[in-house]
Amino acid sequence: MTALEDFNITKAEQSKLNEISLENIPFGKYFTDHMLEADYENGEWKTPRILPYQPLQLDPSLAALHYGQAIFEGIKAYKDAAGNPQIFRPYDNFRRFNISAERMQMPTVPEEIFMDGLRLLIDMERNWIPAHENHSLYIRPFMFSTDEAIGVRPSHKYKFLIILSPTGPYYATPMRIYVEEKYTRAVEGGYGFAKAAGNYGGSLLASAEANKKGYDQVLWMDAFEHKYVQECGTMNVFFIIGKTAITPGLESGTILDGVTRDSTIVLLKEMGYQVEERDLSIDEIMNAYKAGSLNEIFGTGTAATISLIKELKYKDYVMKFDVQKWNIAPEVKRRMDAIKYGLEQDTYGWLYKI
Amino acid sequence: MTALEDFNITKAEQSKLNEISLENIPFGKYFTDHMLEADYENGEWKTPRILPYQPLQLDPSLAALHYGQAIFEGIKAYKDAAGNPQIFRPYDNFRRFNISAERMQMPTVPEEIFMDGLRLLIDMERNWIPAHENHSLYIRPFMFSTDEAIGVRPSHKYKFLIILSPTGPYYATPMRIYVEEKYTRAVEGGYGFAKAAGNYGGSLLASAEANKKGYDQVLWMDAFEHKYVQECGTMNVFFIIGKTAITPGLESGTILDGVTRDSTIVLLKEMGYQVEERDLSIDEIMNAYKAGSLNEIFGTGTAATISLIKELKYKDYVMKFDVQKWNIAPEVKRRMDAIKYGLEQDTYGWLYKI
Repeated sequence: MTALEDFNITKAEQSKLNEISLENIPFGKYFTDHMLEADYENGEWKTPRILPYQPLQLDPSLAALHYGQAIFEGIKAYKDAAGNPQIFRPYDNFRRFNISAERMQMPTVPEEIFMDGLRLLIDMERNWIPAHENHSLYIRPFMFSTDEAIGVRPSHKYKFLIILSPTGPYYATPMRIYVEEKYTRAVEGGYGFAKAAGNYGGSLLASAEANKKGYDQVLWMDAFEHKYVQECGTMNVFFIIGKTAITPGLESGTILDGVTRDSTIVLLKEMGYQVEERDLSIDEIMNAYKAGSLNEIFGTGTAATISLIKELKYKDYVMKFDVQKWNIAPEVKRRMDAIKYGLEQDTYGWLYKI
Repeated sequence: MTALEDFNITKAEQSKLNEISLENIPFGKYFTDHMLEADYENGEWKTPRILPYQPLQLDPSLAALHYGQAIFEGIKAYKDAAGNPQIFRPYDNFRRFNISAERMQMPTVPEEIFMDGLRLLIDMERNWIPAHENHSLYIRPFMFSTDEAIGVRPSHKYKFLIILSPTGPYYATPMRIYVEEKYTRAVEGGYGFAKAAGNYGGSLLASAEANKKGYDQVLWMDAFEHKYVQECGTMNVFFIIGKTAITPGLESGTILDGVTRDSTIVLLKEMGYQVEERDLSIDEIMNAYKAGSLNEIFGTGTAATISLIKELKYKDYVMKFDVQKWNIAPEVKRRMDAIKYGLEQDTYGWLYKI
């Protein structure tokens, strides 16, 4: 474990915390007093710094702005029943961050910087963690290339940061989802599994067109036939058919290996449901709906948590649900929240306590 | 046409031009004294500024660094025989820039900012245009999202810039190319046609693996079967089979609609070659090679110009060429250069004179 003296710490002169209310705060708009910053140069990571949240001086030729070597993670910290900070499964995000880094030809970030830095930073900013239901402190680790030269090649220099944003609920109400047939998010051999900036920028047009049709998000389909389910907006997706929960598998490398997805699988199994990670076609979904066996659909994600899907539209066919009658997804959410907020025992070792 | 007074101009106190030699200068490393900057906010473009090249103050939550709304163009300016600046087909890049913008859910940039700004900037920086063979002033217009908040949605604010970099040759020698079967650059329904940052960051791993095998770049293949040619590294690609030039078509939206590609098609036709824009399989290429009718392979791009390909490897099969015997690609390059440097008449209206 890294000692405090391995970090260069500069404290903010005064906190901004008294300027805002932490209740019902919008997602990603406010940031805490401090941030973590570490630079990679000449093949090694320099001493990380914790310093007051502040603008960065970046050259217009900054490699990341031209060639998109930019990755991130999303993690959440909560207050337990006694008011102490705990972070949900940060090691899983740490591992995934470095998988993204390797796909984008970026250096991996050492545990001593990512995890110990996160621990120090959350400790310093513990008063920023909201104590309200469905609220949390959203943690955004990210890294981008910083070479000050243009030319398509991996950058020599990188910057890793962690910023923190207190947040309320992300998707507040059950969602209406449009099955996307025109646009594609990812394909085998691409980088759909990586939490890389380019996967998000490329997705916005499809979302915008779905919004115009009155839908909240798209359900991405496979690149080849637009027939098999992939993921939903910025969430993984689960379909409960009969007593079985089905979610797309990770083999093709086209969807995100979600931490909330994995936690959901664990909880569903514990609740007695069979979980299948496999290809799921829109035809199978429609047939189940027609047969009355499509019971629930929901998305999972760190920002979104568990989000119920009350409507799914494929071509001219609309599937509607009365989410008030559901009990599986709400129970998954209840259990996961109970663990996150320290109300039920964490039997899985998911919590990283500060 | 925009008047000078529509731009807010601040001149550099002194030029950096006397600090460097413009001969054999590396690509994208040095930038001129001034840059153009324009901000988009509240649904409109603010007054563009021309100001000394300088770092930008950007918030760590800058949307572009997280969600990849970032596009660019590459254009070149040359000196004509009399020493006056001329820009090669900038309107085509301007149009393509706005096509990229629409795909990435970004605002389009008006001609009054992009083209008139470019004209003013090149006029101010005319002494930075190298006069040597294969040298030019590389023009990099780019735009990125600048919302200071995290959350996957189109940004409300954007920044458009033009920076300039004097440059020597990009790929100096004939290239060895590896036919890529594992990684994918783009797929139908994605944004492969857009000059967006994410297309480049995602390509670096394949290039790195090809480099390790001793190859300069990859030849990207289609996403479905890895059987049909797409583009080559950062270039479009042409195959001369018999007396016919074949280059992949643009219909699938998976390759860049290259300005140098289009110029090459025009020149090849004028030189009496038949040009086919169509699907071209690796089998057809190998069969032509075996039959002795695969005469030349070359890449085209603004940075790369016309780059000869002396070796192509597919699985264990290696196709080698004696580029010294070629005359088609070298003649295309000679003619295009003669027009760019004002040595032969521009009968196509390709040059935009300052």
